[in-house]
Amino acid sequence: MKIQLALDRMTIPEAIETVKEAEHYIDLIEVGTSLIKEFGVDSISEIKKEFPLKPVLADMKTFDNAAYEFTIAFDAGADMATVMGAAPLVTIETCLQVAEEKRKEVMIDLLNVTPEQMKRLLTYQSAVFCEHVSKDEQESGSKTKQNKGRLPVDRLALAGGIAFSSLPLAADKDPEIIIVGSAITKAENIQEAAKQIYTALQTIKTGENV
Amino acid sequence: MKIQLALDRMTIPEAIETVKEAEHYIDLIEVGTSLIKEFGVDSISEIKKEFPLKPVLADMKTFDNAAYEFTIAFDAGADMATVMGAAPLVTIETCLQVAEEKRKEVMIDLLNVTPEQMKRLLTYQSAVFCEHVSKDEQESGSKTKQNKGRLPVDRLALAGGIAFSSLPLAADKDPEIIIVGSAITKAENIQEAAKQIYTALQTIKTGENV
Repeated sequence: MKIQLALDRMTIPEAIETVKEAEHYIDLIEVGTSLIKEFGVDSISEIKKEFPLKPVLADMKTFDNAAYEFTIAFDAGADMATVMGAAPLVTIETCLQVAEEKRKEVMIDLLNVTPEQMKRLLTYQSAVFCEHVSKDEQESGSKTKQNKGRLPVDRLALAGGIAFSSLPLAADKDPEIIIVGSAITKAENIQEAAKQIYTALQTIKTGENV
Repeated sequence: MKIQLALDRMTIPEAIETVKEAEHYIDLIEVGTSLIKEFGVDSISEIKKEFPLKPVLADMKTFDNAAYEFTIAFDAGADMATVMGAAPLVTIETCLQVAEEKRKEVMIDLLNVTPEQMKRLLTYQSAVFCEHVSKDEQESGSKTKQNKGRLPVDRLALAGGIAFSSLPLAADKDPEIIIVGSAITKAENIQEAAKQIYTALQTIKTGENV
């Protein structure tokens, strides 16, 4: 299980400072959609330049124009990029093609995907599938029904309001990636918050191996 | 019926040059998603600064984080912004709220919206509803089934591969806005292409009034 740190609603220098604090305790860096839409793909390239050894995910949330959007994300230095599971299948397939050509990866964001669409998406098993409680759903308390069981996918990611307290519940699903945002980025002591989550996850992993 | 010129897959200076050529024949300027993701909200503010009297739509394609995304778009000078109809309803409602507070407008992009979701969206009658054949669907020829009839909405926009030849078909649905992209932006003579579409639309309108 890897920890992905999601960076949102901040400037690029703030994002870089945040990662510097947390970097020893996280596996992947997520350049959030808000950074990309506010500052463009420079947000990806500047962060990748500072942390060349950390895999970077660009949360492009692509819904159309897949080849163009994935190409600019990967060319800016992203190792993985997101496409919306609710998008037309041709868009998702184009993202997978571009990623394969460039030896990069795709994360499919399952936010608001219908059960019918979910069945279709399951054929794309090279992608990481991200179960996602959105920011707006968290803030309004209108959380959509979550998948109780584990999705039948090889590669699972979990996102949306995950904090120290909800870590065991998330880890129960045995995801490849756990995405943590404000529980680290908005903490008074970013380094301490990241370390706490890292340590808790190590303990859970060790427990599993006993 | 107004003509909205969609600017995509180009630099900000190219976008400004394109609008300068076409400006007498278009009603609204669309800063495309590709410009926003590539260059950030500067793409909106720089274009608005050049054309302060033209309404500017920011094609944000918001799917989450609605208040933040719509605020940065409107603060950059956009008069209208897009949210995906496939997004959670709380996200769409937040966009409508932010727009109302700032006396701006919302366009709901209907790309890949299910019939069930469509019914729910119809309550948001202050928004412009955009029937949309996506770039990826156009390029792959995998066009999804189009609505044959006219949606029961007050404010309709049509987008996706609309050119001089398909203008009468689009105009038949009596939309408030017809969105034209590459038929103008990729024309050898941008001004001439814009004028041709403008004139054709004037003729159609005059015909209707007879």
